[in-house]
Amino acid sequence: MTKIVIVGGVAGGASAAARARRLSEDAEIIMFERGEYVSFANCGLPYHIGGDIKERSKLLLQTPESFLARFNVDVRVNSEVIAIDKASKQVTVKRASGEEYEESYDYLLLSPGASPILPPIPGLNNPLTHSLRNIPDMDRILASLSEHKPQHATVVGGGFIGLEVMEALQQLGIETTLLEMADQVMTPVDREMAGFAHAEIKAHGIDLRLNTALTAVQQQQVDGQLSGLQLSLNNGDTLDTGLLIMAIGVRPEVELAHKAGLEIGALGGITTNSLMQTSDPSIFAVGDAVEDQDFVTEQPGLVPLAGPANRQGRMAADNMLGRQQHYRGTQGTAIVKVFDLAIASVGKSEKTLARDDIAYEKVYVHGASHASYYPGAEMISLKIIYSPTSLKILGAQACGKDGVDKRIDVLSVAQRAGMTIEDLQHLELTYAPPFGSAKDVINQAAFVASNIVAGDTKAIHYDQVDKLSDEQLLLDVRNPGELEKLGHIEGAINIPVDQLRHRLGELPKDKEIIIYCQVGLRGNVAYRQLVNNGFKAKNLLGGYRTYQFAKA
Amino acid sequence: MTKIVIVGGVAGGASAAARARRLSEDAEIIMFERGEYVSFANCGLPYHIGGDIKERSKLLLQTPESFLARFNVDVRVNSEVIAIDKASKQVTVKRASGEEYEESYDYLLLSPGASPILPPIPGLNNPLTHSLRNIPDMDRILASLSEHKPQHATVVGGGFIGLEVMEALQQLGIETTLLEMADQVMTPVDREMAGFAHAEIKAHGIDLRLNTALTAVQQQQVDGQLSGLQLSLNNGDTLDTGLLIMAIGVRPEVELAHKAGLEIGALGGITTNSLMQTSDPSIFAVGDAVEDQDFVTEQPGLVPLAGPANRQGRMAADNMLGRQQHYRGTQGTAIVKVFDLAIASVGKSEKTLARDDIAYEKVYVHGASHASYYPGAEMISLKIIYSPTSLKILGAQACGKDGVDKRIDVLSVAQRAGMTIEDLQHLELTYAPPFGSAKDVINQAAFVASNIVAGDTKAIHYDQVDKLSDEQLLLDVRNPGELEKLGHIEGAINIPVDQLRHRLGELPKDKEIIIYCQVGLRGNVAYRQLVNNGFKAKNLLGGYRTYQFAKA
Repeated sequence: MTKIVIVGGVAGGASAAARARRLSEDAEIIMFERGEYVSFANCGLPYHIGGDIKERSKLLLQTPESFLARFNVDVRVNSEVIAIDKASKQVTVKRASGEEYEESYDYLLLSPGASPILPPIPGLNNPLTHSLRNIPDMDRILASLSEHKPQHATVVGGGFIGLEVMEALQQLGIETTLLEMADQVMTPVDREMAGFAHAEIKAHGIDLRLNTALTAVQQQQVDGQLSGLQLSLNNGDTLDTGLLIMAIGVRPEVELAHKAGLEIGALGGITTNSLMQTSDPSIFAVGDAVEDQDFVTEQPGLVPLAGPANRQGRMAADNMLGRQQHYRGTQGTAIVKVFDLAIASVGKSEKTLARDDIAYEKVYVHGASHASYYPGAEMISLKIIYSPTSLKILGAQACGKDGVDKRIDVLSVAQRAGMTIEDLQHLELTYAPPFGSAKDVINQAAFVASNIVAGDTKAIHYDQVDKLSDEQLLLDVRNPGELEKLGHIEGAINIPVDQLRHRLGELPKDKEIIIYCQVGLRGNVAYRQLVNNGFKAKNLLGGYRTYQFAKA
Repeated sequence: MTKIVIVGGVAGGASAAARARRLSEDAEIIMFERGEYVSFANCGLPYHIGGDIKERSKLLLQTPESFLARFNVDVRVNSEVIAIDKASKQVTVKRASGEEYEESYDYLLLSPGASPILPPIPGLNNPLTHSLRNIPDMDRILASLSEHKPQHATVVGGGFIGLEVMEALQQLGIETTLLEMADQVMTPVDREMAGFAHAEIKAHGIDLRLNTALTAVQQQQVDGQLSGLQLSLNNGDTLDTGLLIMAIGVRPEVELAHKAGLEIGALGGITTNSLMQTSDPSIFAVGDAVEDQDFVTEQPGLVPLAGPANRQGRMAADNMLGRQQHYRGTQGTAIVKVFDLAIASVGKSEKTLARDDIAYEKVYVHGASHASYYPGAEMISLKIIYSPTSLKILGAQACGKDGVDKRIDVLSVAQRAGMTIEDLQHLELTYAPPFGSAKDVINQAAFVASNIVAGDTKAIHYDQVDKLSDEQLLLDVRNPGELEKLGHIEGAINIPVDQLRHRLGELPKDKEIIIYCQVGLRGNVAYRQLVNNGFKAKNLLGGYRTYQFAKA
């Protein structure tokens, strides 16, 4: 009889417990959870605050009782594992009462997760400042909202949780400021793609402050009562707020593993092999606390996401019970809803590739989420990054109001399968007017990339057109009405694509003509005309739309 | 200077013309279209009839004038190519006036499409009977609706167009009967998956008659005026109707190719190689008129879909202009909206595999379109068919009200990439509560299949549980309330899964216990308990839901 002890009862731990029981009826399975709740929907917490998920009980997916009934798992909540004795294969458990006891194991699974990073900012420890990781955190935020009825709230950090809480607070009618130290929200996507999110955030009345850090917090009092907080910012400004949510990121909970002498990686997560086994073969670790192997670079990474945690938990159970399931690396597929917009990504961003000195090429396209003549079509803005040598997909990012999840899922599968950007031309995706297009935006991106690979297109990017030389000429091939309505790039001359063939005489052959249209498609038609007529030219990929939102 | 002549100005032909011009500014490109319209949105026609697409002009994507302006393509509408002289490389063109002339070519592209099959049913040729292939067909149907204001309409054929027109007519408030000769609508999916569509169709008040064929049509008159049609059916019934839409399928338009001596395949489509080249190397053919190579079986197939037609047109242009682009086979990815439901499929169906004697295994799962605790989650019903030897994906089918397109797209990519059903466990799909689940329904299907492959699950299917032997016992592990509310299978005993561990004594060890729950998940938990306790058992994949809708 195998005895399995699990530390942490949420995604990875709960998945492992259920799987272990399905594999073995006679294994003894004990799951320790420091908090009061197991298997709760941590990704749902912001949505209960904002009121989208009305019933708190919906967040409690399992209880200790339900786990016992269905899986015969001995769930012990309010029980913190405070020490591991690897030699004797025992853990020390501390009850809420303070009482401690030992529990032996054959296999130990660590699934402690990650905890919110709280920077050493003076004054942060106050009753109006919260982070959001679990049910009690959520309950405290809801209590604070109910008690203090803040008119204004501030969220620090524009990652997933920060954005979701920001939206929740705005939905509650609270004036909200979002402070972000970087020049963009959603670091998994590149700056120019985050521009779509910035525009959406501002359009919903959020006071978005990029490049802005919180430096100090002061409590304010009225009649001896705490009435609010005054925030000091790194630009010298101050900001009065009634609620402060800290969401600058999370860090792996490795104290227990570290104290036990398990190997910790350079990034601060528990080191595991592909079996999810730590440096002690009897101890496995999964989820936000471990360093995953990055799918693209094969380097260790910290990717606190629910999908990998769940799958790793299932695999760890397999492997503790004598099987051999190898984890195949993390792509970091992620998505966030920002008001009406979805922003999603998979694989590496351009900035991480540049930082790691990995060669890449990229394309931008904008296309309709389904046939544009059918009601409800929304623009999807897509960036795909690929290797100029292997042509494999290194990463992809998308924004839009519909169908963003689908496109990134398709690209996630294509990346995992090792497809090249050229292979994407051949994808046969569902098409009927309510659902897609005969040439999906992904096919289109592949056509653009394949044109570059074949030498049929010379591309220029949004960040290069503001610094053209005297040897270059900017040509806008949209219709004059579009320039007026949507704006244009300073210094461009305008010849609509459908007039171009008859107006070639207006263009010089000794300059390089930088062509752009709204999304890049007509620009390509114009590009081919010019080049086939002996002109030198480049086409702005993603057109004016990419250029414009990169500045948002 | 290359001279390219194109026959047919819709999907394949129009794509080829545009691509050819982008590749070559000096090619001469002439596109002949028998009808009045080029590059119209034929997939949008039913939606204009039903009123979803309000403006007819939205269906006209390009005009001869716009093609000339943008692509310098000489578009000649109302011009039918009636003969090809391969030896002299000339076509004979007949104008609407009846006048004929010759046009030479270096390369000829045939993209004539497919035409509706009109069976030899007596009386079919009448003013109230229509098919729907192009703009004039649509205009005639709209005129008939406006003139005759039918109270009742009949659609013959439950394929894509039949279903879409059925929905359009119902939206207009017309009582509608759908006649389908087979025992199911949507032949690309298997009978049990079509059950979801049948239920949806009936729920919207459509008079759905399966296994019913039209045998004769009689015109009815009132005061010497045509007032309606009386339909005779193969079951002896008659049916009075005011409008008859024939949508039993299409057949490739190959008369021109056949007369020219080009090779026609056994299925009646033009034969091409992977360059889309016919038996005459100067003549290419694409779209609904050609036999595509099936991606799975590598056998010829007829798949009249817009996606392949568009991509083939682009490739044919490449190849006519000296490149080498190979078409990589058709998976037949398809989707149709049936009221609030989407039904989609990719690859081979079970019935075609059985017919072709190809070994397969299959799984059914039902899972939420996104986190079930977040509002708007809908059930997705998914079937994946895979090879028991290579474990590659042979086909997939899905039904549901949300996210069906995404799942079939993911599986389409996975199939094209050669992934196995086990690989699907590792897919990392976008997850946030509004968009997905930490374990997507596709991951779940892969878990189920991998359990079967590993010998951890013995499966039984919906069509086997009505004919159990005396050596088998049917066990329903749902809660009593579910049996009452949702129904149950005759003869089942009921022990809820959470009580099972303590009630094992009620079950015999000498019989095989056939377990089912609502969707198969709790059934698997129960299965593992029983097997790990020494019982013989099987789990009904897809649970009661698959069983129930298979009968719809």
